[in-house]
Order: sequence, then structure tokens, then C-alpha cells
Amino acid sequence: MPKTEYSLYPLGFIHSPLKHRDEAPRQGGEGAPDAWLEVNPAIAEGLDGIVAGDEIIVITWFHQAQRDILKVHPRGDKTIPLTGVFATRSPDRPNPLGLHRVTVLEIDGNKLKVGPIEAIDGTPVVDIKPVLSQSADSQ
Amino acid sequence: MPKTEYSLYPLGFIHSPLKHRDEAPRQGGEGAPDAWLEVNPAIAEGLDGIVAGDEIIVITWFHQAQRDILKVHPRGDKTIPLTGVFATRSPDRPNPLGLHRVTVLEIDGNKLKVGPIEAIDGTPVVDIKPVLSQSADSQ
Repeated sequence: MPKTEYSLYPLGFIHSPLKHRDEAPRQGGEGAPDAWLEVNPAIAEGLDGIVAGDEIIVITWFHQAQRDILKVHPRGDKTIPLTGVFATRSPDRPNPLGLHRVTVLEIDGNKLKVGPIEAIDGTPVVDIKPVLSQSADSQ
Repeated sequence: MPKTEYSLYPLGFIHSPLKHRDEAPRQGGEGAPDAWLEVNPAIAEGLDGIVAGDEIIVITWFHQAQRDILKVHPRGDKTIPLTGVFATRSPDRPNPLGLHRVTVLEIDGNKLKVGPIEAIDGTPVVDIKPVLSQSADSQ
């Protein structure tokens, strides 16, 4: 990898009943629980305008990822041929960013209850964005 | 911001006819051009499995962003009240990640022609993911 690097800071962390990576579903829509996203009070004013019921994109940092992997068996299924990580959602990838579309269920100061989300307890959150209504933006 | 930080490395860069931030549309669907995404040859095998016609999510690093901004006028329109950056798609935000849903138009070795995309020439790309078909994942 080139030497250039960019620094991300945690905006906050996920508090979830999912404690281990091997108990997390592959995607939020596959039976994941709701979780609390607690942001650092110093940046909580950046949440102004988000209301319960909104759909948002949470970008996480998969802190337990292996970053030196370029090919995986999708969904960990060895019957599926090895595929480039950029053609998969594997958390193991050079820059282990996770993308989660969730609904905001409740807001309590600097905490958002969101779900469903497959990120495990303690996962850092590095960005939050609104879902845009135009179809060109749907993920 | 807390001292913890995570390092992102550029996977590659956008080559676009858009040279300046003030000529870029706000979103790809608002008249943005196509562009070439050239990845570092050392990680090009991570693209295996992506084919022309695929829809992918490109995550960029808005290298010209201001990172100390928590509230903005959405779309730069001062008639819209100041709003928390996490309720907007402003490139000015603590961790300036950009999310772009694009179509892969052509593949030439370690280069993907994608579009439409509003990222300017020279924008670093930090992740590439497939669009998932299930609705729970749509952005």
C-alpha cells in the first residue's frame, strides 16, 4: 500500500447485545438487533436535524478486520470461488469500512437507537449520513 | 476529538474532467460526468468479480474538506437553517468520507470507468463495495 494515509477519528461507538464477530449476521436485514450509537458529546451538535424515523447510513470501522486480504470466499462459503474483496461486503479488506443502512428508532441526547445493525459491541462509528431520496443515490 | 485514530490508505484515485470543487454538482445524479477510477496495481486483484454493468458503491476521501465543521447550511443555501453535518451530505465533516453509487461502464486492467460521479479529479478512493440487492441495504 502507498505511504499516504488519512486519519479517521471515532465519532462514537456502537453498544450492542452482539459481543462477538462470529455471532453477528452477515447483513443487518438477516436478523440483526437494534443497538445504541453513542457519539462523543463534543460533536453531538452535528446530529441536529436527525429525528426518530429517519433512515441513515452509519459508516463503521471494522476494528477486528484483517487488512491484508484481497480475496475471500463470499459469505465465508468455501463452495463459492475466491472473489476480490471489492466485489464483496467482507469486513476483511484494506480499509475496513462498514456501511449500514438503519432506521433511527429513538434519540436521547448524544445517543441514537438504531437498527437493525450487525455491527458488534464496541465497533467505532466514523460517519453518519442521511439516506437521499433520489434513486441515483440508493445504495 | 478523541486521540484514537484509524489509518486509511488510498486504493487509487479518480481521474475526472471536474477539476475544481466549485464546478462539481452536489450529487452524481445532478449532471455529474463519468470518470476513471484507477487503483494501485498492488491491490488490483481485489477487483476480481466486478464486471461492466455492475452497480457499486465508491467511498472517497474528500481531501479538500474542512474537518472542524459541525453545522452547515444544506446545499450551501443560506435560506436553509444551519443543520448538523450528520443530517447532510456536506463534504465538510469530521471524517470527510464520500459515498457514491455508480455504474461500472468499462474495465481496463486496474482501471474502472464509472459514473455518474461528482468527485473531482484527484479524489482518493478508499473503498469499493457491491450494491446489495436486498432492500434493507439500499442507501
